[in-house]
Amino acid sequence: MLSFNKEFSLEITSDLQEIMQNAKSKVKEEMDSERVGYYKLPKTSLVMVEEAKALELEHIKQIVIIGIGGSSLGIKAIDSILRPITPHAKEVLFFENSDPITISSTMDKINKDEACFFIISKSGSTIETTSIFKTIVDRFELELDDAKNIFAITDDGSSLSEFANHHNIVQFNIPHNVGGRFSVLSAVGVVPLQVAGYDMAKVLAGGDDFLDSFFDDKEEHLLRKAAFVYANFKKLSINVVFSYSDCLDNLTKWYVQLWGESLGKIDKNAQNVGVTPIGIIGAVDQHSFLQLIIEGPRDKTITFINIEDFSNNLKVPDITLKHIEKTNFINGQTFSVLINEQCKATMQSVIESGVEADSITLDEISERNVGAMIIYYELLTSLVGAMFDINTYNQPGVELGKTILYKNLGNN
Amino acid sequence: MLSFNKEFSLEITSDLQEIMQNAKSKVKEEMDSERVGYYKLPKTSLVMVEEAKALELEHIKQIVIIGIGGSSLGIKAIDSILRPITPHAKEVLFFENSDPITISSTMDKINKDEACFFIISKSGSTIETTSIFKTIVDRFELELDDAKNIFAITDDGSSLSEFANHHNIVQFNIPHNVGGRFSVLSAVGVVPLQVAGYDMAKVLAGGDDFLDSFFDDKEEHLLRKAAFVYANFKKLSINVVFSYSDCLDNLTKWYVQLWGESLGKIDKNAQNVGVTPIGIIGAVDQHSFLQLIIEGPRDKTITFINIEDFSNNLKVPDITLKHIEKTNFINGQTFSVLINEQCKATMQSVIESGVEADSITLDEISERNVGAMIIYYELLTSLVGAMFDINTYNQPGVELGKTILYKNLGNN
Repeated sequence: MLSFNKEFSLEITSDLQEIMQNAKSKVKEEMDSERVGYYKLPKTSLVMVEEAKALELEHIKQIVIIGIGGSSLGIKAIDSILRPITPHAKEVLFFENSDPITISSTMDKINKDEACFFIISKSGSTIETTSIFKTIVDRFELELDDAKNIFAITDDGSSLSEFANHHNIVQFNIPHNVGGRFSVLSAVGVVPLQVAGYDMAKVLAGGDDFLDSFFDDKEEHLLRKAAFVYANFKKLSINVVFSYSDCLDNLTKWYVQLWGESLGKIDKNAQNVGVTPIGIIGAVDQHSFLQLIIEGPRDKTITFINIEDFSNNLKVPDITLKHIEKTNFINGQTFSVLINEQCKATMQSVIESGVEADSITLDEISERNVGAMIIYYELLTSLVGAMFDINTYNQPGVELGKTILYKNLGNN
Repeated sequence: MLSFNKEFSLEITSDLQEIMQNAKSKVKEEMDSERVGYYKLPKTSLVMVEEAKALELEHIKQIVIIGIGGSSLGIKAIDSILRPITPHAKEVLFFENSDPITISSTMDKINKDEACFFIISKSGSTIETTSIFKTIVDRFELELDDAKNIFAITDDGSSLSEFANHHNIVQFNIPHNVGGRFSVLSAVGVVPLQVAGYDMAKVLAGGDDFLDSFFDDKEEHLLRKAAFVYANFKKLSINVVFSYSDCLDNLTKWYVQLWGESLGKIDKNAQNVGVTPIGIIGAVDQHSFLQLIIEGPRDKTITFINIEDFSNNLKVPDITLKHIEKTNFINGQTFSVLINEQCKATMQSVIESGVEADSITLDEISERNVGAMIIYYELLTSLVGAMFDINTYNQPGVELGKTILYKNLGNN
C-alpha cells in the first residue's frame, strides 16, 4: 500500500478547481476513447503474463535486454526493486548504450547456452539497439531462423516486427496507442520480467487497483499535486524525487524520462513548459544535494519516498568503539529504523527551511506497490500534461539530433 | 589532454572583467595563504602514494571503502573511469548508504581473508560510516588491536583518529584546510586507489599540470565559464553535464556534490544563490532527458563531455538483417565513432535550438586526464564561489537535519 501523508501546500482557487476538473475529464477521455493506451495495460497485459509462461524458459539463466530509454528504464526499475524480495530471480543483463566499453564487458558476461535475448524497440529502428543486436548476433553466432532464444518486442508492422516474421522469431507487440515511456506494463516489461521470475500479474494488479481508486475519486491528492506543479511551474521549476533506498534508484531514472520527455514541451502559445525532474537517493545524497536544497535557489519541490518495512532486520550491533561513542544512540536499532528516521528528519529540516515537500510511503517492497507507483507517476504525468494543454505523448525535440547524426554519417 | 572547443557565449562587460580578475585573485589568495588546502594536494599527496606502496598490500584482493559523500564519491569516480584501462585493478567495494539491503548484499561479497578495510570520515563521527563499520567489525569478527587490514582516513585529532591511535591502527590524515568534497586527491582517494592498483602519481601529475596551466593564465576559458555561470545564474539556474560514456557516470555524481554543496548558499545579502547540477549519460539519456532540454523551459546550460579514443575497437559488424537495414550506414564503424558522432549531433541540435552549450573532450581515458578533470571542476567551483562572494567550503544547511535526527532518536 502507498500512503501520502504530506502534500504540497496548494491553495485551490475556483480557476484552479476548474483546471483540475478539466484535466481529470481529459484523462478519462484519453482512456475511454483509447486515444492513449497505457490506462488499459494493467488489464490487457495479463495475457502477456500467460504468454511469457507459455514460453517455458525455466531452464534459462540469463535474460539479456537489448533496448534503450522506454525499452529499458522501466524493466530496470522493476528488476531493481523486486530483486531483494525475489531470491530466485534470474540474472538480467542490459544493453542500452553505444558505449564500446560497456558493450564489451556486458557481452563477456553472457553464457550463450543459458541466455535468452529480448530485442526491444517500439519503432524497430533505434540505432543503438539494432547496432548492439547485430554485434551480439555476430559475436555469439546466433542462429536467426526459428530461433528459440531470441524474442522481439515491438510495434506490429515495424521493421523489427517484419524482421521477426521473416525469421520466424517469436514477437510480442506493443499497442500502437502506448508510447515508449508509458510501455513498462505492456509486453516490454511484462514478458522479460515474468521470464526472469517476477510475479508480473501482481505488479499489474497493483497498478490496476491504483487506477481504479483514482477513477473512483479516491486519490484526489494526485489531482492536487498536478495542480500544484502546474500552477507553480515557473517559480518551482525543478522536482527532486528523494528516495530512501538504493533499490529505488532505477525507479527515479524511469521517472526522469517519463516526466522530462512528457512535460518538456512547447505549448500552444509557443511557451517552453515543463518541470525538470531530478532523482536522488537518501541517505547518501544528504551528503551531496541537501545543502543546495536548503540554502540554494528556491526553485525546487522535494518528493520524499520511503519504505516502511525493508523485510531486513540488519541491526547496528550493540558494541562500543573507544572514542567513537557519539553515535552509540543508534546501537541495537535496525538500519531500517535508521534510514527511515533519516528520511523523516531530512524532510522536517527541508520543510522548516521553507521548501515545499510531499511524501510517498511504501509500506513494504512488493509487486503490488511497484505497480501502484508506476501508475501513480503515469497518471500524474498525464494530469500535468492535460493542465499544460500539451501533447504529453510525443517527443518532437529529439528528431533534430537524429537527422544531424544520419546526415553526418553519410546517410542522406 | 583536455580540450575545450566550444564555450558558452559570454559578453564580457568591464564590470564582469573586474569580477573575473577579483575571483582569480581570491582563488590565488586562498591558495597562497593556505586558507584553502586542495590546491596543494597534487604535490603534497605524492607522499601518500609512497605511503600506500609501503603498506605492501599486494596480496590483498578486495578494497572495502566505508565512507559517504566526500569520502566515497571521488573514489568511485576515479575507480569507474580508470578500471577499463587497468585490467589488474583490484575489486573495490563501497559501503555508503544506511540501506539495510545494500549493506547486507555488499557484506556477502566480502572475503575477510583477502580484504582490507578503509574507514573514511573527515569529522570521524558520520553516523552511516560508524554504524556500518561497527556492523562489519561484528559480522567479520575483526580484531582491532594492531590490525593489519584496517586503515583510518580522517582529520588529525578527530574521534576516528583517536580510535585508531587507541588500537594502534594505521591512519592517514586529511589536511584540516581540505573540505570533504575537495578531498579526493588527499589520502582519501590516493591511498585506497593506489592500493587498488591505480597509478595515483599520474592522476596527481595530471591535476598539477592543469593547476599550473591555470595559474600561468593558460586556461582563461575557465574564468569565462565561471563568469557566465555567475552572470546568468538566475535565468540559467541548471547546469546539465552530459557525459558520453558510462565510465563517467560517477564523475558526474562527484561533480553534483562539489557544485551543489559548494555553491548552494545564502549569500551576504541573504539571497539564495547557486546553480543546480545534473549529471546525465549519453547516448542513453538522449532517450530520456534531451526532449526537455530542447523544448522545455530555457533554464539550462549543457556541458558535453566526450572521450575521443576509447581504446576499444569494437565494431558494428558489417552484416545486414532483413528489414532492419535502415541503420546499415553505421556498419563497419566502431562504437567509439558512433557514440562520439551521437555526442556531436546532439550538441549541434541543442545549440541550433538556442540552448547554451560548452564542451570538454578527453583525448583518451588516462590517469592524467582524470586528475585534470578533477582540478578543472574544483577550480571552476572556487571561481564561481568567489564571484558569488560566499563561503564555498562549508555546508551549514545540512546541520538542521542532523540535529532533528539526533533529537528524534533520543540523544538529546
